[in-house]
Amino acid sequence: MVEFRAATAADLPAIVRLLADDELGAKRERYADPLPREYIDAFAAIERQHGNSVIVATLDGRVVGCLQLTFIPGLARLGMARAQIEGVRIDRSQRGEGLGEAMFRHAIALAKAQGCGLVQLTTDKSRPDAHRFYERLGFVASHAGMKLAL
Amino acid sequence: MVEFRAATAADLPAIVRLLADDELGAKRERYADPLPREYIDAFAAIERQHGNSVIVATLDGRVVGCLQLTFIPGLARLGMARAQIEGVRIDRSQRGEGLGEAMFRHAIALAKAQGCGLVQLTTDKSRPDAHRFYERLGFVASHAGMKLAL
Repeated sequence: MVEFRAATAADLPAIVRLLADDELGAKRERYADPLPREYIDAFAAIERQHGNSVIVATLDGRVVGCLQLTFIPGLARLGMARAQIEGVRIDRSQRGEGLGEAMFRHAIALAKAQGCGLVQLTTDKSRPDAHRFYERLGFVASHAGMKLAL
Repeated sequence: MVEFRAATAADLPAIVRLLADDELGAKRERYADPLPREYIDAFAAIERQHGNSVIVATLDGRVVGCLQLTFIPGLARLGMARAQIEGVRIDRSQRGEGLGEAMFRHAIALAKAQGCGLVQLTTDKSRPDAHRFYERLGFVASHAGMKLAL
């Protein structure tokens, strides 16, 4: 059975495994035992920031999907809060089963319940499949997503 | 003299004036006296969220620019925190004077001081001048910025 819930520190190894098992993630992440301290510290910082969380999808109790969901209050658009999604992954063995869509429906429902006026994300241009997936969910690529490495 | 500082509630009317005095903002904002309650509530929510703030640029004490700067801890990229910028405006009378660039340099320095690994923003595709401005600052349009209205 598929369920969605907020991640706990105990889920971190499973989440990092998902983050790393990805064409871009393979170059950026470090999935090792023990788990690199950076992930543990980052998760603690996420938990300390009001409105920030990691959501996991579980199948019979095993973590098979994740995304980060952050509620960001803002002044623009008449003081509209927005929900932002980062770090989306679905286990390779579960792709094409509708799990990603169900996980997004869950996140979108949470954003609505928080009074957010929009959900936003950026997707790397080298991921055309992801782009189509988000368009099927109703996302519109109205903006350029720009990044400055520090 | 130009200075940069965190906005206070007393700056809100000046900030909303800037947000509204814009091609897209004119349709989305409501600059009125008294200021719509939504902005006051949103500013209070920004102040309550650790890592979220509005920065103003002042010229001889008058607010002539603003942006929202949010530090977002995350798991991806080995637990990298990112800084996100929203709601950027420069007073019409001050454009082309390097003020926007100076305001961004200030925000980027704050992000570095917080240990962020990147600064990100999305810019509406209907703003080609903004796109070029960000590219001059070193931002790369590597991503599509996707939005889902709720």
